[in-house]
Amino acid sequence: MANSKPAQPSTPSRNDEARTREIVVLRWGHRAQRDARLTTHVALAARAFGASGFMLSDTFDEHLKASIEKVAKNWGGCFRFEMGTPWKNAVKDWKMKGGIVVHLTIYGENIQSSDALSRIKTSGKNVLLLVGSQKVPPEFFSAEVSDFNVAVGNQPHSECAAVAVFLDRFFQGKELSRDCGNAKVRVVPQERGKKTEVDHGF
Amino acid sequence: MANSKPAQPSTPSRNDEARTREIVVLRWGHRAQRDARLTTHVALAARAFGASGFMLSDTFDEHLKASIEKVAKNWGGCFRFEMGTPWKNAVKDWKMKGGIVVHLTIYGENIQSSDALSRIKTSGKNVLLLVGSQKVPPEFFSAEVSDFNVAVGNQPHSECAAVAVFLDRFFQGKELSRDCGNAKVRVVPQERGKKTEVDHGF
Repeated sequence: MANSKPAQPSTPSRNDEARTREIVVLRWGHRAQRDARLTTHVALAARAFGASGFMLSDTFDEHLKASIEKVAKNWGGCFRFEMGTPWKNAVKDWKMKGGIVVHLTIYGENIQSSDALSRIKTSGKNVLLLVGSQKVPPEFFSAEVSDFNVAVGNQPHSECAAVAVFLDRFFQGKELSRDCGNAKVRVVPQERGKKTEVDHGF
Repeated sequence: MANSKPAQPSTPSRNDEARTREIVVLRWGHRAQRDARLTTHVALAARAFGASGFMLSDTFDEHLKASIEKVAKNWGGCFRFEMGTPWKNAVKDWKMKGGIVVHLTIYGENIQSSDALSRIKTSGKNVLLLVGSQKVPPEFFSAEVSDFNVAVGNQPHSECAAVAVFLDRFFQGKELSRDCGNAKVRVVPQERGKKTEVDHGF
């Protein structure tokens, strides 16, 4: 496997879709004891795959907030973390600002075999991405709440995987090579070993 | 959001790439107490996104095995679950059978901005996909173990997200609309609500 090309440099800024469209992930049903690590992974995946923020609805988890904000501070970019807002208020507020709501659920339209993603993209609107961690309220499926119910495959897997793949497809992968501004730590991609650049400031 | 088209029917069988290429996910460093739910999500994502098996290396977790096998039995398809094999033996055995090893790591070649995925695909070989859950042994990065070190983005996120996005890109999404044979439960994708078909047998 020696005939490799060197990794290409990262693109200098966020891609066009990311610049003009905003996606915020809303996590419903978080239980601090049981879901701490999974919700952390969902929030980190949201950030890494191009979402601009994460809302932990209906509850508070200071430890989670601190760990996500620490990553965002060290690794750069703008990523908002909010918590405590009741989900109904968050949805209402989002819609009042002209955004649409997309509920990720195994029961929804298949992201691969339907045209749901294309309809979401052509709407041109900001997206609030609803993900549960336990059985969600039936209202999530209704037109009053969700403009789209989308299944990242109709097989059981993981809300973390669903968020990552939805965002990867939405941004067409460009989010993975963007440069997060004002980072203190940055990985220098390599075929072998570990290399980071650290900005120690003044 | 009413101007939608109905979801297309699923493709009748696994896609060509999936039929001829085998990917097995090897999870290293699992700790039964701490990682139970995350490893479950990684294994379910592996299955949902087209891997043909999952190996829990170096340890045993009967509860995990039972829960994954239950999903595989109810939701169909062929998905092997193995556990207990030391990772070095698993890697050696895989290579002896002509397969390659791909290590998913934040430090590796960026899947978006390098040609790593293209080189993996053109190798035409079966892939053992190594993922850690804690700091991995340094040998994982060496040519003796990993033919490729690939970063699903060079930002911190989640091994669950990394496995899902790698597989989604490898199989070009076709795995999400395939029909898992001999399923007892099957979701009927819908714009609203929940619908399943259950085969109660004889």
